[in-house]
Amino acid sequence: MDFTSTDSLDGDVIERAFTLGDIPGILWTPSTASADTPAPIILLGHPGDIGRMHPRLAARARSAAADGFAALTIELPGGPGRTPLVEVERARADLRRALQAGEPVTPDVIDRLILPLVERAVPEWQATMEAVLSLDEIGGPVGFSGGVIAIAVRLAAVDQRVRAAALFAGSFVPTATLTDAAQVTIPLHVLLQWDDEGNDRQQALDLFDALGSADKTLEANMGGHTGVPPHAGESAARFFARHLRATE
Amino acid sequence: MDFTSTDSLDGDVIERAFTLGDIPGILWTPSTASADTPAPIILLGHPGDIGRMHPRLAARARSAAADGFAALTIELPGGPGRTPLVEVERARADLRRALQAGEPVTPDVIDRLILPLVERAVPEWQATMEAVLSLDEIGGPVGFSGGVIAIAVRLAAVDQRVRAAALFAGSFVPTATLTDAAQVTIPLHVLLQWDDEGNDRQQALDLFDALGSADKTLEANMGGHTGVPPHAGESAARFFARHLRATE
Repeated sequence: MDFTSTDSLDGDVIERAFTLGDIPGILWTPSTASADTPAPIILLGHPGDIGRMHPRLAARARSAAADGFAALTIELPGGPGRTPLVEVERARADLRRALQAGEPVTPDVIDRLILPLVERAVPEWQATMEAVLSLDEIGGPVGFSGGVIAIAVRLAAVDQRVRAAALFAGSFVPTATLTDAAQVTIPLHVLLQWDDEGNDRQQALDLFDALGSADKTLEANMGGHTGVPPHAGESAARFFARHLRATE
Repeated sequence: MDFTSTDSLDGDVIERAFTLGDIPGILWTPSTASADTPAPIILLGHPGDIGRMHPRLAARARSAAADGFAALTIELPGGPGRTPLVEVERARADLRRALQAGEPVTPDVIDRLILPLVERAVPEWQATMEAVLSLDEIGGPVGFSGGVIAIAVRLAAVDQRVRAAALFAGSFVPTATLTDAAQVTIPLHVLLQWDDEGNDRQQALDLFDALGSADKTLEANMGGHTGVPPHAGESAARFFARHLRATE
């Protein structure tokens, strides 16, 4: 984990860009975190392009830091600054064409778009966890928040270090994700925008039902794909406070 | 509104039993409420029998009082101490028979069980609101919480004084309630127990979808019919704090 720049956000949060091999990423630590009081950490998922997403990711990191949590994100496989994934780009073009033509999005296109990302991103998140948990000021437990739901579900299914996950049911779901979902047993907080036109609501409900966790919450709100109300962010924050603070 | 007894719960909450005509009820006011600082009030719904439900109702009232809200409940039509509703009792017996025989519960039975309660309970809640809002220490706005969802939905549809409602999707829903639902426009917080064996999940989702409010949240949790997790109560409390505190 090679740090390439350090910045201070309002004195409360240290923002450090890093690379891990060829993966660019950003780590945010509350200025209170130290070897004596290491911070739990939340991994921040996103739809790709951490440069473009930076303002929103930094806002989520600040909110995490206010609760005493570090936060971290890495670029998606095939994202800006990384080796392009030709097959994924082709699937994305096919998806765009289908949406523009008003044609149904076939499972085949979703599999070709999402599964290569899942296959590559999950070991990258695991390598990043390994690296960040070796830092003195980071102590775990680890949470995962948002991003491509198929990646989050696979990671939660295979890696016991992830102890709680807040999922956003707003992206395409390959059939294989339903199988992964049954293997997940950690506490989950699933956010769904009920009137999200670009989302298949029934598929999101089926995925929630398939998740194996005994402790899972579905929170559905109005406001369309991007209109998540502020109180939904607050309830996700309380979810992590319940599950990542060892003393509570 | 004739008060028949007064009790103090820990010095923080005044509990007063009352009758309004032939309707028995209970009013809880935070000891801080006065003519100078009148309290908003939450109407507490329940499945019937306020004597048996008293411990749970008093716990909800204490929690409301901690947030500065008064709380009130009245006995259901046909409930203990009230004129029996022979047709409703007959429908309840038919329902019990169907459930014990493992037969499907027909819409006809649900209509005969629930609609007479809706027809009678809604004007009774309205008369009670009228009476309680005339007290110096109660100032509104009014919230409604839980109980028979068909009653809550009809009341919210017809009475503008109810400004926010937390509904529990755990009781039978007559078809007419879907029509009432479309008329509701106030902020809503709907609680669903996802793995409630006695509940028709699809019907609950259909009802949530039918509600006309632009600001509505569905929160689904695990734990069966009676296993509502503590954090669900907290999120309902925050919902009322957002909508009933005039200054927020």
